[in-house]
Amino acid sequence: MVIGRVIGRVVSTRKYEGMQGVKLLVIEPCFGNKSDYFVAADELGAGEGELVLVSKGETARHALDKFAPIDAIVVGIVDGEPTIEISRAGVSNE
Amino acid sequence: MVIGRVIGRVVSTRKYEGMQGVKLLVIEPCFGNKSDYFVAADELGAGEGELVLVSKGETARHALDKFAPIDAIVVGIVDGEPTIEISRAGVSNE
Amino acid sequence: MVIGRVIGRVVSTRKYEGMQGVKLLVIEPCFGNKSDYFVAADELGAGEGELVLVSKGETARHALDKFAPIDAIVVGIVDGEPTIEISRAGVSNE
Amino acid sequence: MVIGRVIGRVVSTRKYEGMQGVKLLVIEPCFGNKSDYFVAADELGAGEGELVLVSKGETARHALDKFAPIDAIVVGIVDGEPTIEISRAGVSNE
Amino acid sequence: MVIGRVIGRVVSTRKYEGMQGVKLLVIEPCFGNKSDYFVAADELGAGEGELVLVSKGETARHALDKFAPIDAIVVGIVDGEPTIEISRAGVSNE
Repeated sequence: MVIGRVIGRVVSTRKYEGMQGVKLLVIEPCFGNKSDYFVAADELGAGEGELVLVSKGETARHALDKFAPIDAIVVGIVDGEPTIEISRAGVSNE
Repeated sequence: MVIGRVIGRVVSTRKYEGMQGVKLLVIEPCFGNKSDYFVAADELGAGEGELVLVSKGETARHALDKFAPIDAIVVGIVDGEPTIEISRAGVSNE
Repeated sequence: MVIGRVIGRVVSTRKYEGMQGVKLLVIEPCFGNKSDYFVAADELGAGEGELVLVSKGETARHALDKFAPIDAIVVGIVDGEPTIEISRAGVSNE
Repeated sequence: MVIGRVIGRVVSTRKYEGMQGVKLLVIEPCFGNKSDYFVAADELGAGEGELVLVSKGETARHALDKFAPIDAIVVGIVDGEPTIEISRAGVSNE
Repeated sequence: MVIGRVIGRVVSTRKYEGMQGVKLLVIEPCFGNKSDYFVAADELGAGEGELVLVSKGETARHALDKFAPIDAIVVGIVDGEPTIEISRAGVSNE
């Protein structure tokens, strides 16, 4: 899963029938390439600015009760910013 | 899903039987590495220059009524440019 | 799908039984990181130097009549170079 | 699979029912882009600082006894740092 | 599939039951980002320094007789270094 921040919504009128009523959020990844925004379905009511946990791929489709051709979905709203303990010691090929 | 712009079409005569009649669009991603063009199937009638929402991976295959070995499909045509509210505050490892 | 050019072949004697008789091509992506060569199965008879359309992931396995543990397959031979109409206007986070 | 180090945990109260009780770890990849942190489910009891082996994608979901919409899971705790014998000779497109 | 070189092994005592007895190799990709090492299961007896062909994703799991939560597997040992005929002419967005 990836942690991202909700930064927008996508509106689409012409779409697959299964996509009707599916809320689509624009997500900014918190780590890695932050400009690589992507879109995830949301049924948990995530609001703009909130941190969310997103699952990608085939598993996203199975999270819904109905069929929708989605490949990313918000699976959790993160309570607070995760505590990251950086420890770069160890295995490395740098 | 990713948001991209339709910038071309692909024509292929020699192809899998399941690919017959499947419209194939060249998509320019709107975010991330914009030069990483890819090809998506389209059944919604997206036209050149339009913004589209594309699902990738196994879910793409399930969006079609018939079997076609595709790994990307247009699942919605985006009404307008999504409103992005940049808020880079928060979790970061930069 | 990605558009790539056939630039070589892979020969492997010790392999999974399902891989017997599966032609394996080295593909150079036409877009994105062109040096990120990958290998795709081919049943369409693509020749060296030809442009091909490749599907990746689980869908590749379903394109074959038999089981083979492949994750990429040539699904079409591209007739000519796709006409790309660059239109970088619009949504951007640059 | 990827080798990564456990560097944190994610807490989420509002989440899919299937995610209840699933421990979520923040993982720092040991190779490639190390700042590309991601989140993996863990049932093996991996602790902070430990090296783990993570499987991604649809296979992660099948590793669990119940359904949870996850796309990454710790499948092993690495005993020690793997011995890497660098041998860059051979095939290259550099 | 990707072509890579076997550069090490991973030992893990605490792991999923399905992972018992599965040999795990560290693979250096031959193309693209060569420092992006990853781990693949191997049943073909690949040795250190050998070039191998690796399939990733859900297809890897189906290559095994039993269930193991893996997402990459060696599907062939490459006989010799593939002959690459560089032909960068043609479609390009550079």
